[in-house]
Amino acid sequence: MRGLSFDGKLSYRTDLLEPRPDKDSALVRVSMAGICATDMEITKGYMGFKGVPGHEFCGVVEACENDGLVGRRVVGEINVGCGKCKWCRDKAQNHCPERKTLGIMGKDGAFAEFLTLPLKNLHPLPDSITDEEAVFVEPLAAVYEILEQVKINEYKKVCVLGDGRLGLLCAQVLALTDCVLVAVGRHEDKLALLKKLGINARVGSNGLERDFDVVVDCAGSPEGFSEALALVKPRGTIVVKTTAAGKGALSLNSVVIDEITVIGSRCGPFKPAIDALAGRKVDVRPLISAVYPLEEGVEAFKRAGESGVVKVLVRV
Amino acid sequence: MRGLSFDGKLSYRTDLLEPRPDKDSALVRVSMAGICATDMEITKGYMGFKGVPGHEFCGVVEACENDGLVGRRVVGEINVGCGKCKWCRDKAQNHCPERKTLGIMGKDGAFAEFLTLPLKNLHPLPDSITDEEAVFVEPLAAVYEILEQVKINEYKKVCVLGDGRLGLLCAQVLALTDCVLVAVGRHEDKLALLKKLGINARVGSNGLERDFDVVVDCAGSPEGFSEALALVKPRGTIVVKTTAAGKGALSLNSVVIDEITVIGSRCGPFKPAIDALAGRKVDVRPLISAVYPLEEGVEAFKRAGESGVVKVLVRV
Repeated sequence: MRGLSFDGKLSYRTDLLEPRPDKDSALVRVSMAGICATDMEITKGYMGFKGVPGHEFCGVVEACENDGLVGRRVVGEINVGCGKCKWCRDKAQNHCPERKTLGIMGKDGAFAEFLTLPLKNLHPLPDSITDEEAVFVEPLAAVYEILEQVKINEYKKVCVLGDGRLGLLCAQVLALTDCVLVAVGRHEDKLALLKKLGINARVGSNGLERDFDVVVDCAGSPEGFSEALALVKPRGTIVVKTTAAGKGALSLNSVVIDEITVIGSRCGPFKPAIDALAGRKVDVRPLISAVYPLEEGVEAFKRAGESGVVKVLVRV
Repeated sequence: MRGLSFDGKLSYRTDLLEPRPDKDSALVRVSMAGICATDMEITKGYMGFKGVPGHEFCGVVEACENDGLVGRRVVGEINVGCGKCKWCRDKAQNHCPERKTLGIMGKDGAFAEFLTLPLKNLHPLPDSITDEEAVFVEPLAAVYEILEQVKINEYKKVCVLGDGRLGLLCAQVLALTDCVLVAVGRHEDKLALLKKLGINARVGSNGLERDFDVVVDCAGSPEGFSEALALVKPRGTIVVKTTAAGKGALSLNSVVIDEITVIGSRCGPFKPAIDALAGRKVDVRPLISAVYPLEEGVEAFKRAGESGVVKVLVRV
């Protein structure tokens, strides 16, 4: 089959082996996939992953043992647990120590004609969500994870740091709560997308007081965490959403002195993400900078790393 | 007056100015003071502090406007807020942005004949607590802060990392709860103090499973945090108790991937600490390695940094 493959270098290939689903899994024909910061990091060596990257997708079930699902448009949760350990039994396969993660760890991903996922990972899509929009379900679910972890209400002053793909989604979702929200980024053009939605967005944090109850770090760099520390109030909470390939010089002294709570946040619940898109509460369309065909996927990755670009999609 | 002073170098002096209390403060004649890891860091440049270090002490009130307190043996909370800001109004002067901290930030400390503290910072001591024991009230209060921040019960598996001064106190306090406790250190002789109390203590974490609900990092080094990450289970909690002068190469990736909560923890409530000592629930006497007279205070600091030494006290 056709697809993108990373083996130290990302390339487009036409000779990839089609994956075979086991009896609890489905074969999914990918329609559209999105390039995420994690994918970019993977092409720099993050996680030591080799194979087909990609974990944000929508597609159509091509084959599986559940006839009702064949032909359905779906999105899919990306973690595949062992099914036996206590994490899997507790419905927390996201944290199964033996898990595979689509296009990130031990399992080929979405930048190819076909992928496989367990049936229980799949979520059928309502017709009102287009393929382009559906690609955002996975990152949007990751944003909804924040609301599972931290109580956000009208008494909370919240800052979202970062105007990349994830930061712009975070700001939109947090704006749906009653919190006092400030989005801080570095790019006027990206922040303009938030301002259009009535969100208080600004370039840089200079002049902001150190009185945020919650800072969501979507900056994707070690510097982001330092900036978060400069904005969060004592006894406040920093939610760290993004991983980075390198290690930065980081001191936890101010975490201790100011008794900050730092919460790591990764994959999240698909249902509220699908509902938000279906209900038009979140508008992801302005975030799409470009759509490339699969055979130009390497080019698409390059484009995704360019200044001013938000989300690049790949049509399979 | 006599005392120790740090101005890039720690020295014993006899010409220090006696501090003068304002009308809401007391003049306290220090009886005994303890050397803490923070004091050692201060003599390496931490916080840029200059003056009389020391924040763990007990003493006798020499003069103040409250006659009932004069002549009483006291210990004292070390943070002095501005008294006006919202933090101070909310009884959280520990986090007042304008605060001074005894012997750490903007205020001369306890390694001298006299210190001053606001009356509201002082806690009279019961006779059953000796001067030597009373010096441990402040660090013990910092340990009790953990129980204010994290719910510890019989369903929790807890690891205390570090067998220094604070680690040994943490292990003792956590052993009073119903949690499953493992103390991990590097020194057989120090861990033996815990074993005598029936606490499960061991050298190194090799072979321990990554399944602790809570890891309390008292290691006092950037490596401690990495070790904590290797022991805490996904969605678990790391409580960071110690500060360090340097910055380490640290990645927050596994905090994100495993959705770890990191909680910084500093000063705590004095009342449970005093009660624990008075009720003989915690025994700090075996932790006292040596007691030096004030004029040998520089020597005492050297001794506190030596291998095998737990707590060094200075009699004033």
